[in-house]
Amino acid sequence: MVDVGAKATTERFAHAQALVRLPPAAAQSLRAATLSKGDAFAAAQIAGILAAKSTASLIPLAHTLPLASVDVDFAWSQECVLQIDARARTAAQTGVEMEAMVAASVAALTIYDMTKSLGKGIAIESVRLLEKRGGKSGTWRAAGFESG
Amino acid sequence: MVDVGAKATTERFAHAQALVRLPPAAAQSLRAATLSKGDAFAAAQIAGILAAKSTASLIPLAHTLPLASVDVDFAWSQECVLQIDARARTAAQTGVEMEAMVAASVAALTIYDMTKSLGKGIAIESVRLLEKRGGKSGTWRAAGFESG
Amino acid sequence: MVDVGAKATTERFAHAQALVRLPPAAAQSLRAATLSKGDAFAAAQIAGILAAKSTASLIPLAHTLPLASVDVDFAWSQECVLQIDARARTAAQTGVEMEAMVAASVAALTIYDMTKSLGKGIAIESVRLLEKRGGKSGTWRAAGFESG
Amino acid sequence: MVDVGAKATTERFAHAQALVRLPPAAAQSLRAATLSKGDAFAAAQIAGILAAKSTASLIPLAHTLPLASVDVDFAWSQECVLQIDARARTAAQTGVEMEAMVAASVAALTIYDMTKSLGKGIAIESVRLLEKRGGKSGTWRAAGFESG
Amino acid sequence: MVDVGAKATTERFAHAQALVRLPPAAAQSLRAATLSKGDAFAAAQIAGILAAKSTASLIPLAHTLPLASVDVDFAWSQECVLQIDARARTAAQTGVEMEAMVAASVAALTIYDMTKSLGKGIAIESVRLLEKRGGKSGTWRAAGFESG
Amino acid sequence: MVDVGAKATTERFAHAQALVRLPPAAAQSLRAATLSKGDAFAAAQIAGILAAKSTASLIPLAHTLPLASVDVDFAWSQECVLQIDARARTAAQTGVEMEAMVAASVAALTIYDMTKSLGKGIAIESVRLLEKRGGKSGTWRAAGFESG
Repeated sequence: MVDVGAKATTERFAHAQALVRLPPAAAQSLRAATLSKGDAFAAAQIAGILAAKSTASLIPLAHTLPLASVDVDFAWSQECVLQIDARARTAAQTGVEMEAMVAASVAALTIYDMTKSLGKGIAIESVRLLEKRGGKSGTWRAAGFESG
Repeated sequence: MVDVGAKATTERFAHAQALVRLPPAAAQSLRAATLSKGDAFAAAQIAGILAAKSTASLIPLAHTLPLASVDVDFAWSQECVLQIDARARTAAQTGVEMEAMVAASVAALTIYDMTKSLGKGIAIESVRLLEKRGGKSGTWRAAGFESG
Repeated sequence: MVDVGAKATTERFAHAQALVRLPPAAAQSLRAATLSKGDAFAAAQIAGILAAKSTASLIPLAHTLPLASVDVDFAWSQECVLQIDARARTAAQTGVEMEAMVAASVAALTIYDMTKSLGKGIAIESVRLLEKRGGKSGTWRAAGFESG
Repeated sequence: MVDVGAKATTERFAHAQALVRLPPAAAQSLRAATLSKGDAFAAAQIAGILAAKSTASLIPLAHTLPLASVDVDFAWSQECVLQIDARARTAAQTGVEMEAMVAASVAALTIYDMTKSLGKGIAIESVRLLEKRGGKSGTWRAAGFESG
Repeated sequence: MVDVGAKATTERFAHAQALVRLPPAAAQSLRAATLSKGDAFAAAQIAGILAAKSTASLIPLAHTLPLASVDVDFAWSQECVLQIDARARTAAQTGVEMEAMVAASVAALTIYDMTKSLGKGIAIESVRLLEKRGGKSGTWRAAGFESG
Repeated sequence: MVDVGAKATTERFAHAQALVRLPPAAAQSLRAATLSKGDAFAAAQIAGILAAKSTASLIPLAHTLPLASVDVDFAWSQECVLQIDARARTAAQTGVEMEAMVAASVAALTIYDMTKSLGKGIAIESVRLLEKRGGKSGTWRAAGFESG
């Protein structure tokens, strides 16, 4: 683990996004909320938040962080592509990039788990960082991304 | 959680794959094993295996499974695209699809964590199932995938 | 830990129930689903299920069990008293009584957490076993309880 | 998760209490310390303390907190009613109410687990907050409770 | 992880032992049970049992096992040397050697933690396997050890 | 848990060391890196670091700490004796002695797990603190140890 003892404690923010492509039948059930397993969005949101809080036990060299907040939101970016946005905030000596990436990934895996009986071929098409603020390197945004 | 009590115990296998696109400098360091944080492949392999074993605590409706084995392997599918293959096996009443997906995802997130200081814009480009065997639905393979 | 190695593997079922008394304003918000923190029932259900799966790491002498299923349901037993029913099933050498009790307790604590900003004095009024089936001692029901 | 980033860091204290009603034979064994499973009070105390430290992984929207201390104590409030007092302290941006509630609940569940072979019908009769200090809302005490 | 899918399920037993050397003052307090932190033996026993159940999340390539029982016992092998015996049992496709080693180690670390304020220089002098039964390789005993 | 709320936050450092004696064949394989299970040093290093971060969930009365860094290094102190050095750092109200001891112990147990198929009789011969800095009691070094 990189020693962060000498770094300043500053406000940190990170926004990660996952995209999940679903077969038409699964996407339709998810939109219509008729999944036999219950509310997939609520389950994925909570799974993502809990996973963000356990980032340091999943990612070997990640530092334990006291997260100020984590949000996980859902939107349809295409007819059959679910977009999952995870935003994490804290005041710490190191960033919350991994916490946001973990939240987005585990929320996507939970959507996968809850829709996989509805059709083969669900795929997580992307998990990436959109924005990062705070710390020595300041603000960074992915090419083409406007913060919102 | 779906009640699996009445299902037969059969041999189960699942193979999931993640692709991670790295900026050229990060890919080069990873190939040359000159990362200041140590051996990223060993770390990612172990993180993936440990995560597979904790699938039931990450994914709300996943069943606790006694895994017979989990493997995580690495290869370069393109100049700057790392391919992570996770294979899980067990004899159980329910499949190991989520265990393989979780192993591939967490291994990919660990590669991300260990290379992120080398360049912005690393992205997990895909996490998907390639093959699944065992259980009532039998063998399934992703379109275009030849088991190996 | 009691040695369960010599016990027979049989079908096991347990049903535990928790009652949570809420101040009128909190009960009303919960019924109307206007909680700022999101869907409290979905959160409590998932928290209860996840906790049931981690019973052996919470309760020192509990055995690790592969749960076949866990369900957590909600109903209003009185105007301001929420009833939480947790049912656990498995085929094992030892019962799932603690899994059901843990699921009901953690679901109740999650409801508490998500409504506590709406009024002081929320109380968990009861967590108890209603029914237990399987194993050497067979079926047991709490006085006055009809299985349903 | 509610964003606590803008809240002040102040001293926080919470005191929760659980009551466990035991059948006469179980209560007598517990008082006489003749339980075959060993020292139930020590086990319950440790289980409560460990659970308090893992509150953020049990309760979905709870914040990770560095606890300064947690205590779990036992007394007999009636012939067959065991009283469990859990007190938690920290200096943080958010309170330790859930940590105290979780400690009291898991200690009560552990007592239940260690006495359940001695008689059916053990019940957790109450888990509630008695006192809370610190933070914007200041000191709160349950009706009729004198801090001690 | 080594694939254990083809191995036979047999009765497994392992006995590990840790030795902890304490400064005279700490040993005396431990014998007289006057530790300000409470009952160190009960705490160490429970910590050892809980750790044994989480072996697969501590040791990267260990398999998840449903333990039938774990025992942790204490004795004084010399004036200032505490002997900790951990015995684990299960019926599984792989042995419980690591579970017994982990239980002995974490019990020893807990004794260390609870006595460290009483004197510098406490040392875990040994953690080793004394006996192992079951599986293809059958019974093994450490040189000079008589099973008891 | 001892209340640390009134203690000052200072820089803390602890260095623990474990010694593992291996049968000649196992030591030779480890030196030659021909273990069928993969890279034992990388696995042990990561297992030690992850365990250090979960110290508060393994050791009942340990406080949750935000570690600034943990390092785990390996050297051969004798032909067949592997030396594992674990160093932990943080700025906190309580020390990191247990984090370093846990990291050294779990790294040693992982080496044991990965070499145990190569020969019976591997033993952890010692786990002890070599140095501690920070806090009220200041710097302490084990007799005969020169900090390095």
